[in-house]
Amino acid sequence: MGIDQNFLGRIRVVLIRTTEAGNIGSAARAMKTMGLSRLVLVEPAEFPSAKATARASGADDVLADAMIVESLEQALEGCDLIMGTSARLRDLPWPLLGPREGAQKAWDHRQMQGDVAVVFGCENSGMTNKEMDHCHFQIHIPANSHYSSLNLAASVQIIAYEMRMVQMLAAGEVVEQSEEILATRDEMQHFYDHFFNIMQQVGYYRPQQPKLLRRRVMRLFNRSMMTHPEVQIMRGILSMIDNKLNEN
Amino acid sequence: MGIDQNFLGRIRVVLIRTTEAGNIGSAARAMKTMGLSRLVLVEPAEFPSAKATARASGADDVLADAMIVESLEQALEGCDLIMGTSARLRDLPWPLLGPREGAQKAWDHRQMQGDVAVVFGCENSGMTNKEMDHCHFQIHIPANSHYSSLNLAASVQIIAYEMRMVQMLAAGEVVEQSEEILATRDEMQHFYDHFFNIMQQVGYYRPQQPKLLRRRVMRLFNRSMMTHPEVQIMRGILSMIDNKLNEN
Repeated sequence: MGIDQNFLGRIRVVLIRTTEAGNIGSAARAMKTMGLSRLVLVEPAEFPSAKATARASGADDVLADAMIVESLEQALEGCDLIMGTSARLRDLPWPLLGPREGAQKAWDHRQMQGDVAVVFGCENSGMTNKEMDHCHFQIHIPANSHYSSLNLAASVQIIAYEMRMVQMLAAGEVVEQSEEILATRDEMQHFYDHFFNIMQQVGYYRPQQPKLLRRRVMRLFNRSMMTHPEVQIMRGILSMIDNKLNEN
Repeated sequence: MGIDQNFLGRIRVVLIRTTEAGNIGSAARAMKTMGLSRLVLVEPAEFPSAKATARASGADDVLADAMIVESLEQALEGCDLIMGTSARLRDLPWPLLGPREGAQKAWDHRQMQGDVAVVFGCENSGMTNKEMDHCHFQIHIPANSHYSSLNLAASVQIIAYEMRMVQMLAAGEVVEQSEEILATRDEMQHFYDHFFNIMQQVGYYRPQQPKLLRRRVMRLFNRSMMTHPEVQIMRGILSMIDNKLNEN
């Protein structure tokens, strides 16, 4: 099928605080069946584990290569496109995609330098709002509203399947993207720091909900997937405001 | 959600000679998450089983309603469209569909009187040629050719997911966004006027290409389809900057 291994090879599956080691093994198996290989574990409760290896059933190379980190931030280093899976709809609604649209989004950005991350929360509570704040998009698997209890590996299976499908469907088809380079995560972080710094200098905050306000601003900019030149423009404007505010 | 329950309610998942009872439970769970409910077991090695119930994790109603039969023929009674899943390509090539095409096929036949069956062979050996002979089509999940070892429940999950997706797509409801109200064109215009006014006050412009800069800023914000509350936040920030700049 002339599959571009590079696309699937740049997709990270990030599992946060997985409690059951068996689920990590099943997730590795689900990934490998679809050609994914990069597993990142944030504070797993138990890993390595015989249970994980047993469930991986031949996908133990994925487990052996798994990266273990202490924070989501570390897990996402070098990622330009970050999508968090969650069944829950948020108080502050996040830009929402289905699994197919999420895979399309990843495919559309395959010329980017950085990796793509798909993040899965822990089995019982899913992703927290704070974790979701790192994400450009929320992926929502359209499950039965009366019983949406997909297990972790099943969710990974569906996402991995759609990633593989989007690549297969596109295979053979020439898509010319003359996109500008997207901003890196670091650039975005510095931009936000700068932005919130100015907000503070001019006294714009709502004491009763300062965090919500930050999240709203981040959501707005995350949603548009800022390019490198756009961040430069915004940083330039912020610097000029900064200078003007601190004149004399 | 306006989903036509009838379509999913007429899809039978037929498991032949499943050896691990736990897999039956996981399959039931996978089915229920996607709104499928009709499980048919052909000569299961062990059923009912505590292991199956444990793995079903809330989908025990699907297990309780499962039909247990002694032959594939019995399992398929009343079915007009029968699809067998298999990773193996046959000596005698069977009409081959991907999971998405299989779901489309089922959808195209939703006006039929009979049910649709999707058949899964036993864990180790899959479907025999004789079993495949009952099927109109073979569904082939496009797995990694170097590791195509999907477990039974994972295969059921993908098929069930595609069945649900074809129905949702047909109903025109892929992802429901609980969106806030979008900003009006007027609001956006005032926001841009305000934004460019601040840019001018702080002296940020590139004389050689002032228009391009404006367009870039507008493109950035337009792309994210700002909501009414987001514009209010940005206007609030701009006003505070404005005030601060003009304080003496």
